[in-house]
Amino acid sequence: MITIDRRDLEFQLFDLLALDDLQSTPRYVDYDRAAIEAALDTAERLGLEYFEPLAAQLDEREPRFIDGKVDMLAGAAEALGAYRDAGFFGAGFEQRWGGSQMPETLGCACGYIFSSANIGLAAYPLLTKGAANLIASFGTDAQRERFLRPMVEGRYFGTMCLSEPQAGSSLSDIATVAERQPDGSFRIRGRKMWISGGDQEISENIVHMVLAKVPGAPAGAKGISLFIVPKYLVSEDGRLEGRNGVALAGLNHKMGYRGTTNTLLNFGEDAPCTAYLLGEENKGLAYMFQMMNEARIAVGLGATALAAAGYSVSKNYARERTQGRHPDKKRPDLPQVPIIEHADIKRLLLAQKVAVEGALALLLYTAMLVDRIRTRPEDAGRNDDELVLDLLTPIAKSWPSEFCLEANKHAIQILGGYGYARDYPVERLYRDNRLNAIHEGTHGIQAIDLLGRKIPYENRAGFSILISRMQEEIRQAQAFDSLREEAEALDRHLLRVTETTGILLAALAERPRLALANATIYLDMMGHSVIAWMWLRQAVCAARQLRSGDGDGPFLQGKLAAFRYFMNYELPKARTQCDILNRIDDMTVSVDPDWL
Amino acid sequence: MITIDRRDLEFQLFDLLALDDLQSTPRYVDYDRAAIEAALDTAERLGLEYFEPLAAQLDEREPRFIDGKVDMLAGAAEALGAYRDAGFFGAGFEQRWGGSQMPETLGCACGYIFSSANIGLAAYPLLTKGAANLIASFGTDAQRERFLRPMVEGRYFGTMCLSEPQAGSSLSDIATVAERQPDGSFRIRGRKMWISGGDQEISENIVHMVLAKVPGAPAGAKGISLFIVPKYLVSEDGRLEGRNGVALAGLNHKMGYRGTTNTLLNFGEDAPCTAYLLGEENKGLAYMFQMMNEARIAVGLGATALAAAGYSVSKNYARERTQGRHPDKKRPDLPQVPIIEHADIKRLLLAQKVAVEGALALLLYTAMLVDRIRTRPEDAGRNDDELVLDLLTPIAKSWPSEFCLEANKHAIQILGGYGYARDYPVERLYRDNRLNAIHEGTHGIQAIDLLGRKIPYENRAGFSILISRMQEEIRQAQAFDSLREEAEALDRHLLRVTETTGILLAALAERPRLALANATIYLDMMGHSVIAWMWLRQAVCAARQLRSGDGDGPFLQGKLAAFRYFMNYELPKARTQCDILNRIDDMTVSVDPDWL
Repeated sequence: MITIDRRDLEFQLFDLLALDDLQSTPRYVDYDRAAIEAALDTAERLGLEYFEPLAAQLDEREPRFIDGKVDMLAGAAEALGAYRDAGFFGAGFEQRWGGSQMPETLGCACGYIFSSANIGLAAYPLLTKGAANLIASFGTDAQRERFLRPMVEGRYFGTMCLSEPQAGSSLSDIATVAERQPDGSFRIRGRKMWISGGDQEISENIVHMVLAKVPGAPAGAKGISLFIVPKYLVSEDGRLEGRNGVALAGLNHKMGYRGTTNTLLNFGEDAPCTAYLLGEENKGLAYMFQMMNEARIAVGLGATALAAAGYSVSKNYARERTQGRHPDKKRPDLPQVPIIEHADIKRLLLAQKVAVEGALALLLYTAMLVDRIRTRPEDAGRNDDELVLDLLTPIAKSWPSEFCLEANKHAIQILGGYGYARDYPVERLYRDNRLNAIHEGTHGIQAIDLLGRKIPYENRAGFSILISRMQEEIRQAQAFDSLREEAEALDRHLLRVTETTGILLAALAERPRLALANATIYLDMMGHSVIAWMWLRQAVCAARQLRSGDGDGPFLQGKLAAFRYFMNYELPKARTQCDILNRIDDMTVSVDPDWL
Repeated sequence: MITIDRRDLEFQLFDLLALDDLQSTPRYVDYDRAAIEAALDTAERLGLEYFEPLAAQLDEREPRFIDGKVDMLAGAAEALGAYRDAGFFGAGFEQRWGGSQMPETLGCACGYIFSSANIGLAAYPLLTKGAANLIASFGTDAQRERFLRPMVEGRYFGTMCLSEPQAGSSLSDIATVAERQPDGSFRIRGRKMWISGGDQEISENIVHMVLAKVPGAPAGAKGISLFIVPKYLVSEDGRLEGRNGVALAGLNHKMGYRGTTNTLLNFGEDAPCTAYLLGEENKGLAYMFQMMNEARIAVGLGATALAAAGYSVSKNYARERTQGRHPDKKRPDLPQVPIIEHADIKRLLLAQKVAVEGALALLLYTAMLVDRIRTRPEDAGRNDDELVLDLLTPIAKSWPSEFCLEANKHAIQILGGYGYARDYPVERLYRDNRLNAIHEGTHGIQAIDLLGRKIPYENRAGFSILISRMQEEIRQAQAFDSLREEAEALDRHLLRVTETTGILLAALAERPRLALANATIYLDMMGHSVIAWMWLRQAVCAARQLRSGDGDGPFLQGKLAAFRYFMNYELPKARTQCDILNRIDDMTVSVDPDWL
């Protein structure tokens, strides 16, 4: 059984991010500390009561494709019903659409709890929120009434339909076509693949957000439009009017993440399929990136939540399981010790702790950027926050996908044979987490986004702001003797990061293929650097509380220990990556495929 | 469908290790090049025809526990029957026991093929061979006739029974008891856990090798004896005489490796269980280490074979799948390119190549050490080979378990969503491989074995010989301009390794708990250093062939490219680990469990 580390969540939300200060803004006036804690309480209760017990069952008895429909354990509808009844579907939306205007940061913390409990189920509301946000941002008022409102109510779910068999990572190659009808609607034809939540019998309706091309549109990404395609047609006054021509063609069976149906969908193959243009023609990919960026952060959050679940299980196991003795006290007549006393087990726990709590700090920080952007006037650093958020998005998606997967690997290792057996959740969490480096843009795609777009953008404006925020935290840290050495090491590291970035940007201008060949290593290096900053933030906060005598000692000591662990055992890896990057090795460009 | 890279196997066996030179020894006189290739042909044919098609089926429909028996797909017995009929069970054994005296190196290459095809099935003969070798080494002639001969014939299978519920990694805490009977046999009582192949209905009989304590024996590991416990009792003339009191109490259900039953066994609970002492009382653990060391190398080989299978699938996929365009040629009207042309895909393939072929070189090298030890007189470097083999064993087990798992992760990544779906084998190979860092001694146990025992042994005799062999290869490399730079980098690296080793050994003498706290990082560091040497060996051999104009260019260029990739992208990680180790950080010792 997993546990939720509420103590850490409170540290992160209140002590690090001062979430309750947001109540001074009109949008979030209802969210005082008591309201925030009540929301977390509800999420924890529903997560552990409804979501978690179903996780193993949905994995064992995954959704099936029977007679053109999805056959799924009934508990899934019940759990999502409880989630809906508690108002979580509409939590983040404006009150005028039926939402409760919950801060993004709090929504992120609640999503973390639900994803820890059952990532496969938590995906449905996350996708629904992203799709609904697209309609909120770009839809007409009529579209909002017809589709957004029932999504906010949790009666309709949403999906994003991008990939096609010939166009997975390469969206400019999609072939789905939408033709305008006399009434202004469109007829859509095509085949979409890997669509998460693409069908189910839980919600009253499904609102697909579909990328397609209008005949005569420009070639490539510039000719992509975005359409609303409902599973059931909806009358203007909101009644369901029978099936639209979107058909479930099959379910993919995956290594993990099995609670989320993953579908192949046919649009307009056996029956006409009606679609509604969202916003303007040919701007679909730009619109979709709003949902994609939200989804990327949600992927990072999910990866972190899975690691948190594994960390909680392996930590509890390590406290209870006795095995072996210390190297300097090996007499066999002595009792065996709890394995948490063994240095190598502590190392595996520390490695999980720095991954989980470091990644969580980053995800909540990005959510707080969203809240600040939403609530601040233009001239109050809002543009800076937007630049930093853009830059951090590929990192917030990728670093957890890689290093929280590694954390789940460590959780298995602590349980040994038990960890490899299906009686414990840790092997499932590891399988679930393997998806996160693939969906919503692979690790390599994120790397190209970071180095090829986000870093050079506006003469590296976002990068410069990020570095200056990190340096500001280093200055804060220098007030504490216990942090100074590591803070200075990070300061020196940032000089190297800046130098390496300059070298790569120069190469990018001259030989883009060569510069981008090392983009993934750059992404990982930047990820470690950003997580080091996140640990410095936590360490400064903990040191401050220890100095003033509030807060509980062991928890805060744990933050300081984890900070030092990250700085001493993990950050040196980023330094090595800088050395590799500085050489701008052309090996991966020049090696002939026939040599492999 | 996986493919077997015979070209690489031939390079490794003939060009690197001169396997056919062994035919000059009396033991291996039958093994000329034609005989070796015939054995590989047979292994490849049986592997792809019988083993591989069953791998997905056994994973999907894993063995079940029904009415006290194992219910398993019939194809498993058929495949192992074909393996038996081809003589592979007895391949490595002396002719006087019915074997064909196949060199260990060749047996290792054949095992690699079968494990690539189906690791779950390949485990049965590997365990049988290890158990049979124990009886060959320590049994009486009567025991050899009764148990060894039918194992060599593949009629009886073998297991190793070490773990108990309270004694997994800590063997000194086993509680199984064996009491001597008037006829010289023993009655054994206890419960063994995680026993691979512990029951099945494929072989006529199962010969369990069981660790237990005789009443009054010394406490801890010094009081452990080793027993032969057959599933069916056997008369002196080899007839089965009914069930012995060993009962299948349950099957464990695992993340992968599902073709191998993993069992909980009760000895002497419902019926008396007869056991036969192997060798002398209280020497059981030392004997068992012969099997354990063989098994550790087999684990490394299995991990490598799984990565080889994944590499073959992902390489073929990358050649066929078209997606996207080059960063400097992105016009959407250009056709999409095969993804093997993308630099990041080549990086993922190179990372797999260095893991697979580097680990294979190490495993075959250890097998060749076994062959040399078997065939050389004492004064011809045999003792040196024994010391190096002992030292390399934990590395040969651990490095592939870690980095070939990582290779399987990369194979999934190349296939993207397809890689995460169960229609392709790569996700299964990844699940299978996750076991290898756990069984036969966890990663952490191997680390303590290396740093705590193998390195300090006889004033680091094995370490010194290993370093001098590496330096000798560096001298060879300096004859080639194309290798000199990397060879010199490795030379400098070895100085650091030697320095770090000295620092740790000094600490080990004074504060063993502290020194061993960093043993896992030392193990990984040594692993990378040894694999760098293995790549240097391959590079020297390839450069020599390129200079003399024999051998095919693309294959040899691939070896040189992979060598440079390892030296430039991987070896720097070991340097970082040396820096971390030199500080002998006490964090993992000093951190309080309550802080986690």
